[in-house]
Amino acid sequence: MADLIRLDVAQRVSLADLPTRPPGSWDRGDGEKETDHLGAELDDLLDLLFYAGQTGLLIVLQGMDTSGKDGTIRHLLSHSNAQSVRVAPFKVPTPLELAHDFLWRVHAQIPARGSIAIFNRSHYEDVLVVRVRGLAPEAVWSRRYDHIRALESLLADSGTVVLKFFLHISKDEQERRLLDREKEVEKAWKLSVGDWKERERWDDYQRAYEDALGRTADSRAPWFVVPADDKRFRDLVVTRAIVEALRPLAPGWRASLAELGAEAKAELEAYRRGGAEG
Amino acid sequence: MADLIRLDVAQRVSLADLPTRPPGSWDRGDGEKETDHLGAELDDLLDLLFYAGQTGLLIVLQGMDTSGKDGTIRHLLSHSNAQSVRVAPFKVPTPLELAHDFLWRVHAQIPARGSIAIFNRSHYEDVLVVRVRGLAPEAVWSRRYDHIRALESLLADSGTVVLKFFLHISKDEQERRLLDREKEVEKAWKLSVGDWKERERWDDYQRAYEDALGRTADSRAPWFVVPADDKRFRDLVVTRAIVEALRPLAPGWRASLAELGAEAKAELEAYRRGGAEG
Repeated sequence: MADLIRLDVAQRVSLADLPTRPPGSWDRGDGEKETDHLGAELDDLLDLLFYAGQTGLLIVLQGMDTSGKDGTIRHLLSHSNAQSVRVAPFKVPTPLELAHDFLWRVHAQIPARGSIAIFNRSHYEDVLVVRVRGLAPEAVWSRRYDHIRALESLLADSGTVVLKFFLHISKDEQERRLLDREKEVEKAWKLSVGDWKERERWDDYQRAYEDALGRTADSRAPWFVVPADDKRFRDLVVTRAIVEALRPLAPGWRASLAELGAEAKAELEAYRRGGAEG
Repeated sequence: MADLIRLDVAQRVSLADLPTRPPGSWDRGDGEKETDHLGAELDDLLDLLFYAGQTGLLIVLQGMDTSGKDGTIRHLLSHSNAQSVRVAPFKVPTPLELAHDFLWRVHAQIPARGSIAIFNRSHYEDVLVVRVRGLAPEAVWSRRYDHIRALESLLADSGTVVLKFFLHISKDEQERRLLDREKEVEKAWKLSVGDWKERERWDDYQRAYEDALGRTADSRAPWFVVPADDKRFRDLVVTRAIVEALRPLAPGWRASLAELGAEAKAELEAYRRGGAEG
């Protein structure tokens, strides 16, 4: 498959120049095999992360309506031990949340070391929908990029791996998916006039995403721009990005677990000797 | 009384040069009258803050053992409507708290707009006791000043007034208070060998406080160095600092309450007219 599109430093981003589709060379059959393979590795890595208890993992999922956030979560959950993972959806803020700074509800959901949180939408909505729909003045939302960088830097300093995914779909693909929802009775609950209305602001959202990604990309909290028109390819890219970020940490986790194991063994042996002598 | 010692910008701080005692001109009788007077004004201001619901108030209390944090809290509570104030004590972190970044438990306790929180110790312990007792390496605690500044800047941007108090006592006064505790049976529970042991590190703590105050002082999150050897003077200074910080905000709160009142009145009149006509 093609290289991951990983944004590691603040930069100008032009989403129109970044692909929403897999490269022409991509083969769906081979891709699914690769996803399964990486998924198995992900499962092992998340287990290690859980038992070693040294590192937290925060996965942020953002994207336009119908870009596949729910589907990505289902895919990730199918490759992880449920006891270590929590999904946190960020919907319209409650009155109590609105009475606090915008990061208050977010900080509360940050995973502990040894835990994993998947954010379905996130603090980025406060520089996306809030900006596009004018829910706060520019003087307010324009300061939020720095606040976000500060929080993510705190998390990185505290042993949390932060990986942010923008599920990049084309405007045509969104139209297809919205029309599909209208046709399928079992998806009708996901449908609202609001989705079509939001679509009218497509270009504004793309601009807002470009600023959000460009201004908060950091080597310790990178953004991945995921070509998401094809759901199988999207799952492959997300899985690969997470596996590649965690793989280098695994030796450290294994060493710490080996140490714990050796201590437990020594304690057990001492107990048995004591029992024999006592 | 003398001017407040208010640190509004990052600076070098020398605690040995700052008073722990009231100025010679201070008269206890007059001082208590002033405290009562300011206390009544504080009560009104905190009520306004509560009903206007626009501003949160965070009061951080720090100081050496026996410096009077508990006494200050009792004094402040005696001049405030209990429904709007919450005291948050920060003791030794729990395992769950330690599994998160050091600001996680602090952020959770930040008051909503319209609320007041008094922190009995705070996030500053993470650059004080943690530094003095080597509970974390310098590479870790030295980055925390910036993280603290970032959080406090976020709060200021979000309508939270942040006021930080260092209750400054002399080493002699601490000795007197520790010996007093030994004598009084009803204060014996407050006593521990640990207090005397911590006292051995007095100079290290003063240095750590100088850095903490000097590096995190900001016009929007000022530190007040409170001469605290005399409890009555200490209460006066703290009360005055809070009143002077809130007083300029009161006209805005009153205007917003007047607006709400006018709306409610108009609604009521419309209801009565409708009732007469219908």
